[in-house]
Amino acid sequence: MDELTLYIANKNYSSWSFRPWIAMTAAGIPFREELIPFGPGATHPRFRDLSPTGRVPVLHHGAVRIWESLAIIEYIAELFPDAGLWPADRESRSLARSISMEMLSGFRALRSACPMNMRRPVNGIALPEGVIADVTRIEEIWRDMRQRSGGPFLFGAFSGADAMFAPVINRFATYDLVRDAETIAYMDAMRAHPAWRVWEEAALAESWIVPEDEA
Amino acid sequence: MDELTLYIANKNYSSWSFRPWIAMTAAGIPFREELIPFGPGATHPRFRDLSPTGRVPVLHHGAVRIWESLAIIEYIAELFPDAGLWPADRESRSLARSISMEMLSGFRALRSACPMNMRRPVNGIALPEGVIADVTRIEEIWRDMRQRSGGPFLFGAFSGADAMFAPVINRFATYDLVRDAETIAYMDAMRAHPAWRVWEEAALAESWIVPEDEA
Ligand SMILES: N[C@@H](CCC(=O)N[C@@H](CS)C(=O)NCC(=O)O)C(=O)O
Ligand SMILES: N[C@@H](CCC(=O)N[C@@H](CS)C(=O)NCC(=O)O)C(=O)O
Repeated sequence: MDELTLYIANKNYSSWSFRPWIAMTAAGIPFREELIPFGPGATHPRFRDLSPTGRVPVLHHGAVRIWESLAIIEYIAELFPDAGLWPADRESRSLARSISMEMLSGFRALRSACPMNMRRPVNGIALPEGVIADVTRIEEIWRDMRQRSGGPFLFGAFSGADAMFAPVINRFATYDLVRDAETIAYMDAMRAHPAWRVWEEAALAESWIVPEDEA
Repeated sequence: MDELTLYIANKNYSSWSFRPWIAMTAAGIPFREELIPFGPGATHPRFRDLSPTGRVPVLHHGAVRIWESLAIIEYIAELFPDAGLWPADRESRSLARSISMEMLSGFRALRSACPMNMRRPVNGIALPEGVIADVTRIEEIWRDMRQRSGGPFLFGAFSGADAMFAPVINRFATYDLVRDAETIAYMDAMRAHPAWRVWEEAALAESWIVPEDEA
């Protein structure tokens, strides 16, 4: 099989890069990682050559280009049907896709007010309108899915849905947004995952600063 | 099999409802449709009882709830693997998902400046920043996919990806946004599809007005 190359940006800041990266790493998929640091600004001119949208993540597989974080997860789930990217039963899979797409298309208030920033010290900020509603809905999703599956992850074992919410765990922690014990238990499970730790360690070792993402 | 019920809002205005509806109708999937007209405002208190997000579309299948337009299309593609919701070859399918998710997560300038409105007379408006870039990228997607497949639809036969872009065809036409012959050829193919015509006829027959969506 052709090699899989995942192009990503800074591990400290690039929330969309984190999603397919942690999905593939947690599932044990062999891939080559190419990190292109943002700049100037929270972008890079090279993204345009690598991806039709001019954004990362983008997966190269031979001549095939797959862009959009969740489309990359779907592609890997098709290539490696036994790797557990999606839950095995159809109902759980439909829920996993519903919540993953809710993440992909929504929660814009939270996403723009509280950029992912793995290095940032824990510190609250003044929250613009809409952030609390986003946080509340995300806590509801996590609670409902973990109650249904028994946890520790959203569908029991780690899946693509956990990957889609991974950057939110950093946001909740670093902007000091949540108190609920069930929420914290899920965040702890995520932050203890070996794939999380590998990404986090690399993020903390980065020294690039993107002022646009320092809230 | 349990009956499939698709809850939607006004055919004139509800762009997200249109997507799974046209995907399922074009594929010949048997389903029951429940239309709940918006109001007051571009929402309805009943959406909250029907869907965990308080938004439509939502599909009910026995006790299962599937929300998010594209998650509904994925679910139907799994239930009816031979209905052609996605292209049959893996590379085309990965492209279909990449562009469908690009639509789901993006093009916000176009979406907010130019709400879908099937009844609206053709009439240009002053375009806020970002709309032209969205239009240009969408035209590029359509051109690339139709060149690759030979058309008339994005992947040859009508697929879930065409469904995801369906409301954009109305926007391009009604706000007079495009001139390119290839773009128009695709729009003509879409507007000639029997499923399009059924939806449009019902939209034109509606008399509810949602001021928020009259640009
Ligand atoms: N919906 C896309 C979002 C991708 C995205 O916005 N990526 C950012 C980095 S986290 C980017 O490439 N920004 C550069 C730019 O927009 O120029 C996905 O899910 O992959
Ligand atoms: N990302 C969602 C968007 C759904 C959506 O925004 N639906 C609108 C109608 S087109 C809605 O229900 N609005 C009511 C509200 O937000 O209260 C999807 O793809 O289904």
